[in-house]
Amino acid sequence: MTVSYDGTAYCGWQFQIKEITVQGVLEDALFKIAGEKIKVTGSGRTDAGVHAEGQVCHFDTKKTNIPPEKYKFCLNNLLPYDIRILKSELAEDNFHSRYSAKQKTYIYNMYISDTLLPLKDRYALRIDNADINIMKDCAQLFLGEHDFAAFCSTGSSIKSTKRKIFDIFIENCENDIKLLVCGDGFLYNMVRIIAGTLLAVSQGRLPKENIKKAFICGDRTLTGKTLAAKGLALKKVEYTLTT
Amino acid sequence: MTVSYDGTAYCGWQFQIKEITVQGVLEDALFKIAGEKIKVTGSGRTDAGVHAEGQVCHFDTKKTNIPPEKYKFCLNNLLPYDIRILKSELAEDNFHSRYSAKQKTYIYNMYISDTLLPLKDRYALRIDNADINIMKDCAQLFLGEHDFAAFCSTGSSIKSTKRKIFDIFIENCENDIKLLVCGDGFLYNMVRIIAGTLLAVSQGRLPKENIKKAFICGDRTLTGKTLAAKGLALKKVEYTLTT
Repeated sequence: MTVSYDGTAYCGWQFQIKEITVQGVLEDALFKIAGEKIKVTGSGRTDAGVHAEGQVCHFDTKKTNIPPEKYKFCLNNLLPYDIRILKSELAEDNFHSRYSAKQKTYIYNMYISDTLLPLKDRYALRIDNADINIMKDCAQLFLGEHDFAAFCSTGSSIKSTKRKIFDIFIENCENDIKLLVCGDGFLYNMVRIIAGTLLAVSQGRLPKENIKKAFICGDRTLTGKTLAAKGLALKKVEYTLTT
Repeated sequence: MTVSYDGTAYCGWQFQIKEITVQGVLEDALFKIAGEKIKVTGSGRTDAGVHAEGQVCHFDTKKTNIPPEKYKFCLNNLLPYDIRILKSELAEDNFHSRYSAKQKTYIYNMYISDTLLPLKDRYALRIDNADINIMKDCAQLFLGEHDFAAFCSTGSSIKSTKRKIFDIFIENCENDIKLLVCGDGFLYNMVRIIAGTLLAVSQGRLPKENIKKAFICGDRTLTGKTLAAKGLALKKVEYTLTT
């Protein structure tokens, strides 16, 4: 299934017993439809407050009397307005939303303003200023395969911190700045730290050279802050390489 | 003052004893700062759920120890995140936010999708389909001075239903449609009914000819539905004619 959600009200994607999560809400709705406890597996977790335009997840069920494409309508009838199934379809037997994923695209949204703007602030981070040309320029340094150890938060146990960035660029329209990053996978908080690093360099708070140094040393102190969750959205998950 | 707000949580601009309104929240905050009951007058009401990028309001106060431009910061410290003062300044003695207004600009946002999109639905109306070229074409019929009796809801007692539209056009980016209307004044629900009429014509549910007929007959049954409040935002209020 392809799922979009406004993450504001949720403690992230992944199920937690005492918190309201997107996975938890989906599993509750599926239980009502299928009458059995069904575990939903996402392409990856999104943190508390992070949004998704196109998260992908899969589940297994023995209930075959509901056509796969109908789950969309059945679930949307039960789900709150901030979660919607955009597509439900039968997957190949060997499909796995996480392990089969080839590339993911994230967006990080910022806006320049001296005042919080109520109509932008739900989905974007307010910043005081930024040299957009520096941002655009530095974003290119992330292209290709690098060790992103200095661009992730501790808390997950992963084997390798090498990841490949297929595409990364900054789009801006007046005071709205959008960072788009497409890669083969992302470490914990990686996009938010890349965004924080680009912001710090563009504001003159970090030297541009830190980016290349950080790839070599893996030193988290060389890179920028983890920016706020609300600016981040998982745009899409793809299962064939397009780049 | 120039004020922006996300209208979702409010029963509109205008003060009501038993409801939470933007004016009410502003007056409460002003009371805390100035220590006196101050009435805030807006350029006009916005309905429950309608947003504003740039509403304008004024107030009179005897408290002259707070410089006018400082009200912005003092109020923003007290206001909830969905209301923000963008500018506070001393007005001319004869300035009146409503009577001095020369032109207002509204935006109505829609998006085409078969499913509600959680990241768009807070500030735009979901529609199933629309012929955007027809919409663009018909929007031009509203230009100039017309009797908008057929494009307003009952409930307000106004002398004349004649209004002048200085500029009106449709912008679209993929499936996002934005209607912009600038005029010398707007009747109750006028923009939402214009948007509803353009939508109905673009979907083949109303003949294009109804628009011209409606200007002549003033018959509300000739025009489209009042579209949802959440798609509407007051973009700006201007005190000199620019068109």
